[in-house]
Amino acid sequence: MSAARASDPAYLAPAFVALGGGHGLSATLSALRLMSDRLTAVVTVADDGGSSGRLRDELGVLPPGDLRMALAALCDDSDWGRTWRDVLQHRFSSSGDLDRHAVGNLLIVALWELLGDPVEGLDWVGKLLGARGRVLPMSAVPLEIEADVEDGTGRTTVVRGQSAVAVTTDRIAHVRLVPGSPPACEEAVAAVDAADWVVLGPGSWFTSVLPHLLVPELSAALHRTSARRVVVLNLSPDSGETAGMCAEEHLAVLHEHAPALHLDAVVADPGAVDDVDVLMTRAQAFGARVLLRQVRVGDGSARHDPLRLAAALRDVVEGYLGDVGTRTS
Amino acid sequence: MSAARASDPAYLAPAFVALGGGHGLSATLSALRLMSDRLTAVVTVADDGGSSGRLRDELGVLPPGDLRMALAALCDDSDWGRTWRDVLQHRFSSSGDLDRHAVGNLLIVALWELLGDPVEGLDWVGKLLGARGRVLPMSAVPLEIEADVEDGTGRTTVVRGQSAVAVTTDRIAHVRLVPGSPPACEEAVAAVDAADWVVLGPGSWFTSVLPHLLVPELSAALHRTSARRVVVLNLSPDSGETAGMCAEEHLAVLHEHAPALHLDAVVADPGAVDDVDVLMTRAQAFGARVLLRQVRVGDGSARHDPLRLAAALRDVVEGYLGDVGTRTS
Repeated sequence: MSAARASDPAYLAPAFVALGGGHGLSATLSALRLMSDRLTAVVTVADDGGSSGRLRDELGVLPPGDLRMALAALCDDSDWGRTWRDVLQHRFSSSGDLDRHAVGNLLIVALWELLGDPVEGLDWVGKLLGARGRVLPMSAVPLEIEADVEDGTGRTTVVRGQSAVAVTTDRIAHVRLVPGSPPACEEAVAAVDAADWVVLGPGSWFTSVLPHLLVPELSAALHRTSARRVVVLNLSPDSGETAGMCAEEHLAVLHEHAPALHLDAVVADPGAVDDVDVLMTRAQAFGARVLLRQVRVGDGSARHDPLRLAAALRDVVEGYLGDVGTRTS
Repeated sequence: MSAARASDPAYLAPAFVALGGGHGLSATLSALRLMSDRLTAVVTVADDGGSSGRLRDELGVLPPGDLRMALAALCDDSDWGRTWRDVLQHRFSSSGDLDRHAVGNLLIVALWELLGDPVEGLDWVGKLLGARGRVLPMSAVPLEIEADVEDGTGRTTVVRGQSAVAVTTDRIAHVRLVPGSPPACEEAVAAVDAADWVVLGPGSWFTSVLPHLLVPELSAALHRTSARRVVVLNLSPDSGETAGMCAEEHLAVLHEHAPALHLDAVVADPGAVDDVDVLMTRAQAFGARVLLRQVRVGDGSARHDPLRLAAALRDVVEGYLGDVGTRTS
């Protein structure tokens, strides 16, 4: 968005919906908030580890952690917004019952118990933070992730639970949700339908990104929306579920799980691409053009830099796709 | 305060400081908020039971429960204020680690850990609630209460810990704080010095009311302040540390613990007074007049009704003390 357009009172910023979970979604939201205040985050609710997993087990609620992180990324840039963000992100540290619980998780769960509605509870936390946008769960019911994995000998086994899938060292062939056809969050479906731009990824590919395409009504909305669709591919992490997977492999996995999905643009970091020609061919199977930009943080670790990602997404939105496949940065 | 005075922009409501803890202090604050927005609550920090006791043990913090209740009583009377009050007062219920923890206790402790200052943390919760006034701890260090109790045979033993003292069935002769001369909260001392009115009680007499007179700097301020001093005596509860104790006995105990304290007024419910003449004599030892008013809730249980208490305190403040000892309601 140019400064001239942003300062025009008649200018309406594009409506973005970002889908994902965890740190990847936080990076996208930190980038998108620089471009628009019409933001909706749609967040996976399959986490079963850490503070979220314990709350889910103890109280039978949605895992709040990824929702909390998304809200924190959207907090108002004021003393008020930052202080409450820091409170929500604060974790207790003790040798007792509260150890590692994030305060925001407890607050979100309390609002859910009090108000009886996940979306209303999240909206209250959004109001507390002065959040620039809205955070929604992809489903109003807690989900589990189940993966078919292949070890080196070609044997296929099933791994169940997001935290188990996220650390598997075997090759993940396919992921499913349990229950298999969960109801989508209505507000999330409506946001996708009404969006100008939909951004999928980055994030834990099998456990935070693909699950959005496994919720039938949400997947249907992602397929039918008139919004333009952008996928931000992962960097190549050293560990976890996609250890060593290059950008073009991420795209191949997405295609296997959603073969009919049309994409407009694919954003990849040159450092995560093994073969640009393969990446372009795979992007073309979605109908998408490729934008290669350095979006990784400067210290070389496998994290997206919000400002670099914002610059890349601004280029996508403004149609400055450049020469496809050319390393422009 | 008459409506005419309250609507005069030049009218400055009197500054009240209410000292106590638990439900008694909440009742006082609910009453005083009807008369003034210049309120300071000074709260005991000796609780060692329930959610507060567990937090104190696990994280080494001040017990937050009585502070939370005082803040809740001062919340703004709006959808915003009432919702966050309800969140703070919400208790988890489970068979797990979080059972019976009050959400506000967790939030207050998180702010303390984050900001490193008890008063600043409480001020942030006050801002969240749009609180009509300020809530302060009587000391910045967690305290213990120790009581000398006498059983029926005249034998004296020591009971230690607020929750143990609060349920003793033996007669409490004297209470002490451990450590014996804790530092007062500076802001609490300053509030007492600057007050127009200081209100002590009602509340658990030995564990929530008398402790304020056992913190040396706070007790000194209560003795030297130019504010008028009001004591609201307890009703006669059926159980707990003052089971069956009448109003005049409460006053006698106060005199034993603070013989040099001057009082201006003593508010008592006629139903808790065994002998009006004795009550008047004991009040005169403090230099105080007695106001008898029905301040108990209508259902007969031993709780103060905020509106009735507000009416009684308004009568005190406006100097309409009536005929001393006459039952005027």
